[in-house]
Amino acid sequence: MALNVAQKLIKDHLISGEMSPGEEIGLKIDQTLTQDATGTMVMLELEAMGIERAKTEASAQYVDHNIIQVDSKNPDDHLFLQSATKRFGMYYSKAGNGVSHPVHMQRIAIPGKTLLGSDSHTCANGCMGMLAMGAGGIDVAMAIAGEPIYIKMPKVWGVKLTGELNDWVSAKDVILELLRRYDVKGGVGSIIEFYGPGLNSLDSMDRHVIANMGAELGATTTVFPSDQEVKRFLATQQREKDWVEIVADKDATYDLHEEINLTEVEPLIAKPSSPGNVVSISEVAGEPIYQSYIGSSANPGYRDFAIVAEIVKGKSVASGVSFDINPSSRQILTDLINEGHITSLISAGGRLHQAGCNGCIGMGQAPATGRNSLRTTPRNFPGRSGTREDSVFLCSPETAAASALTGEITDPRTLDMKFPKIEEPKKPTIDVDLLETPLPPEEAKKVDLYKSPNITSIPEMEPLPDELNIPVLLKVSDNISTDEILAGGARVLPFRSNLEEISKFSFEILDETYYDRAQDVLEKGGHSIVGGYNYGQGSSREHAALAPRFLGLRAVIVKDFARIHWQNLVNFGVLPLTFKNESDFDKINAGDVISFSQLRESLEKGNEITATIKPKDIQIQCVHSMSKRQVDIMLKGGLINWVKSRQT
Amino acid sequence: MALNVAQKLIKDHLISGEMSPGEEIGLKIDQTLTQDATGTMVMLELEAMGIERAKTEASAQYVDHNIIQVDSKNPDDHLFLQSATKRFGMYYSKAGNGVSHPVHMQRIAIPGKTLLGSDSHTCANGCMGMLAMGAGGIDVAMAIAGEPIYIKMPKVWGVKLTGELNDWVSAKDVILELLRRYDVKGGVGSIIEFYGPGLNSLDSMDRHVIANMGAELGATTTVFPSDQEVKRFLATQQREKDWVEIVADKDATYDLHEEINLTEVEPLIAKPSSPGNVVSISEVAGEPIYQSYIGSSANPGYRDFAIVAEIVKGKSVASGVSFDINPSSRQILTDLINEGHITSLISAGGRLHQAGCNGCIGMGQAPATGRNSLRTTPRNFPGRSGTREDSVFLCSPETAAASALTGEITDPRTLDMKFPKIEEPKKPTIDVDLLETPLPPEEAKKVDLYKSPNITSIPEMEPLPDELNIPVLLKVSDNISTDEILAGGARVLPFRSNLEEISKFSFEILDETYYDRAQDVLEKGGHSIVGGYNYGQGSSREHAALAPRFLGLRAVIVKDFARIHWQNLVNFGVLPLTFKNESDFDKINAGDVISFSQLRESLEKGNEITATIKPKDIQIQCVHSMSKRQVDIMLKGGLINWVKSRQT
Repeated sequence: MALNVAQKLIKDHLISGEMSPGEEIGLKIDQTLTQDATGTMVMLELEAMGIERAKTEASAQYVDHNIIQVDSKNPDDHLFLQSATKRFGMYYSKAGNGVSHPVHMQRIAIPGKTLLGSDSHTCANGCMGMLAMGAGGIDVAMAIAGEPIYIKMPKVWGVKLTGELNDWVSAKDVILELLRRYDVKGGVGSIIEFYGPGLNSLDSMDRHVIANMGAELGATTTVFPSDQEVKRFLATQQREKDWVEIVADKDATYDLHEEINLTEVEPLIAKPSSPGNVVSISEVAGEPIYQSYIGSSANPGYRDFAIVAEIVKGKSVASGVSFDINPSSRQILTDLINEGHITSLISAGGRLHQAGCNGCIGMGQAPATGRNSLRTTPRNFPGRSGTREDSVFLCSPETAAASALTGEITDPRTLDMKFPKIEEPKKPTIDVDLLETPLPPEEAKKVDLYKSPNITSIPEMEPLPDELNIPVLLKVSDNISTDEILAGGARVLPFRSNLEEISKFSFEILDETYYDRAQDVLEKGGHSIVGGYNYGQGSSREHAALAPRFLGLRAVIVKDFARIHWQNLVNFGVLPLTFKNESDFDKINAGDVISFSQLRESLEKGNEITATIKPKDIQIQCVHSMSKRQVDIMLKGGLINWVKSRQT
Repeated sequence: MALNVAQKLIKDHLISGEMSPGEEIGLKIDQTLTQDATGTMVMLELEAMGIERAKTEASAQYVDHNIIQVDSKNPDDHLFLQSATKRFGMYYSKAGNGVSHPVHMQRIAIPGKTLLGSDSHTCANGCMGMLAMGAGGIDVAMAIAGEPIYIKMPKVWGVKLTGELNDWVSAKDVILELLRRYDVKGGVGSIIEFYGPGLNSLDSMDRHVIANMGAELGATTTVFPSDQEVKRFLATQQREKDWVEIVADKDATYDLHEEINLTEVEPLIAKPSSPGNVVSISEVAGEPIYQSYIGSSANPGYRDFAIVAEIVKGKSVASGVSFDINPSSRQILTDLINEGHITSLISAGGRLHQAGCNGCIGMGQAPATGRNSLRTTPRNFPGRSGTREDSVFLCSPETAAASALTGEITDPRTLDMKFPKIEEPKKPTIDVDLLETPLPPEEAKKVDLYKSPNITSIPEMEPLPDELNIPVLLKVSDNISTDEILAGGARVLPFRSNLEEISKFSFEILDETYYDRAQDVLEKGGHSIVGGYNYGQGSSREHAALAPRFLGLRAVIVKDFARIHWQNLVNFGVLPLTFKNESDFDKINAGDVISFSQLRESLEKGNEITATIKPKDIQIQCVHSMSKRQVDIMLKGGLINWVKSRQT
């Protein structure tokens, strides 16, 4: 049977399940990527699982998110992460090396491999003919431990590219065009595969731009073939030997179809405050700007900076414009310096920041209140810039450069200049020492994890008891979000590696007494929570399951769950149950005690469980939808214990 | 009479008083410098004073402190500052241009002129043969308004330099040597004037290093002559026409004497946590380091970065060392790039940050808990780095570079390499457009101040009434600091341009009810405070006077005052009184009402004032030590009103 690139990659890594859209499949993971904001918990999970050494072919930890360091928490985290990579046999990329995605592409990515990363833009490395997917922290910890990742087999959405981009139009406009057509939910349940003659004019970094923002379409991931262009790219990194050809079979088909004629793509811009809010630049041209922001994983390539440098060379940006330059990697920064581009950018008025994620994830460079900020970044959700009332537009480097010069949103085609053609540097920088390489096993074993006071191990979690008598500490209504379960933000997130501290914030938005009351019954067997529809919607943060579990949460009974939070509850050994009869919701009150008996046997036998509500002594029926594998995880007390049992 | 350089500069600018140490003198100010952290209040004061246009020869506003921008407050401030410079006819140096002191030196400093700056390191420009002094915000506002600055005539401390520095020893070691000998109070009441044949081997930027850290000795300022070297420096900036020669007369004498033989100076290091804690590097060599930090106004020159680059060129810093590079100005950064030095620094593992003050004032780059940080910065007070339990050492660029390579504190003379001689770039960058120049008066008048919601004008303050009946809201004990009057820190300081908001924090550490109680009597004539010895010690922040005044504080009666806070109370129209008989302290209780009558006349007549304590109906005698000028300020309701009255 003729296969497309996505199918080939999946087939090569299939461990369980059928390659039929919607079926659960298990995939072997070859490489992992973690960044510092999610990586500390991954490392603590590896420790709790008793992992001796990463079982992947390559696992890399990048420090790119929290690199401002306003106090000791972030540098302490960096030291912890470095020690953990030594201990577990992983690569370490220190602060200043740049954003994980382009660095991984340059130094580690290999066509044909799978990559799982605890960062939603991990899909960027789909540009290398890889199956590269973002996932939650514990999923990545699992993959590092040698376990497969389980996903529902996606549909493969073939996007045929024809024609060639005109001057002043670039890869960013291509992915903005797809977002214009399909908005931010358009790729859900799909792998987007680009193919067709239009690929010939897109180099590997152009494809990175497009693959990266597949995340904004909600896609499982994006893939490109590994063709002669990928071979050329690897050669520039002195890694030609890592190249293998992976192209779709001649008669390959796709589940869904789309076509983009590159010749017809025009400069586009996503208006505030969604990446799907895309319009032609002519609709907003002339609006004054406060900021022109260059960089991020969405425009990380040498050309993305060089083109801006060539446009502003010998000129000055408009008075009052903050022209922020954020190099994406140490190698690319060095090339840009050596070719004179950084001088052009600085001389035009640029503020050169350290290489990293920076303002793209709200770490500095916040715009002034209500002023327009043009960014080459992937996302413009409200407040993500750090400014509460922000007004962020997403655009190409060409548009950002033109607008910086004029001080207003400007179609770059209206600049009175010849389109500068960018040539790659003749001798690109290769820094083979950029990443600290894994220690040999014998040395690695001797390494102790370095933990500052703000980093604490994940405590042992007991297996699921056969009997539970757990008071209902909270009865909540519909649409409770993970932000209400455990808030994000600067007040809470610094404690993300300190379960004891972060758990104090659990449910505090809903009920400030929850933490104390949970403590009161912790030793007596824990507690339960009852809720309505769509329980656990919103952010995927796993702390929203882990922190209440740490406080003794053993079961949640609701009308239905948001998908990711449901998965997180399973992973951390909290029984996720729904009412068989939704009207039973009304029979339970806060303060009631829910009793389960012969719980382990019931879970193994089927998907119905009887609960007794005391002191009313009413019986209700609950339902679970865990797979056999997940029931086993639940019985063992969560994924950490489950993996641990498989390591010995 | 033969004069030294300091005396010549003072004589040329003397408006009132005698040049006899200890006497109050009034000096004409030619130039001012403000930075963003202090500048917003200066601009609000200019607005409140009704200033039409800066009356100085040059006033420059630099944005170098708060340039991380984690939310909208800082960028909003920048827009306000830019609008204020347009309004008042000042220079504006935007974020990314670099640290005020080296930028001012390059673009604006002129030998023979006076410079007053709202930054304690303003003395750095003493390297140019200027009388350059740090001062409080309102003093600088006064200077911008054309008023003299009043200081006590300092002693002039002549420090004779002989010999020549050895390889691996540089200007930073010279000032550390002076700190080793005299510690952080050694320069109080003095102007340090360097002279002698040793000057010949110190270029203008070397002198900047030495002058800058005169602040750490507590000196009024530091001066160097304007000699052929200064002429050469100005020529590199295409400003040779600004040069005048200012050297000490042949027979000039000094009030105090010291000599440093440069040949005998060795690499030194200031241990945690004081710049005066200086030891020979051999005492601490071998201690592991977490961070090597390059930059700041204490080592801002091209050579200070180039020497580091040459030392690390082709090598890598030790694993785990955070090697932070902080360019001091846009021009110097451009030169360093063009000469290949930045490439050397980055390739060795450097993290290149934007040009500015950055970690030197705790804005990012905080070290890990308890780990050693080596910095070329001027200060290592506890916690200043942003890390509560920090361990910061101050050293030369040579020592920082050597230690970065080895991962431990290292005497640079032990490196197995030839000392790299640094040549200035053949074609140094001149960016004449770096600073936005003052608008012509007609255009300036049309500019509106841009104020975000966090910036509010200073309200009008009424003149001192002739009668006061003011309840004692607080009776406090000895040694109350300005931190207790109005806390600093991240919670309070963001509101530094919003009097209404920041005043809510007044005295909250001592009494949380103060704010509400002050509001209750605000319309009834305000309130008073009674205290013990050393009232208002600590930080010089003027908000500690302004915020309580805003809440209706009219008089403070104490046993004695800390000097700067006393001055601030005068400046903001709060009557600062001491008990004639200290035992009267015991006669007053919180809740009593203090009455003054014929107050204005009493103040004009002498320095004793009678207060009646109600309801006890006791009379006590109070004393003030204000000069005639200061009484006039007090009667008018503070300095803002006083200046306003002189403008019309």
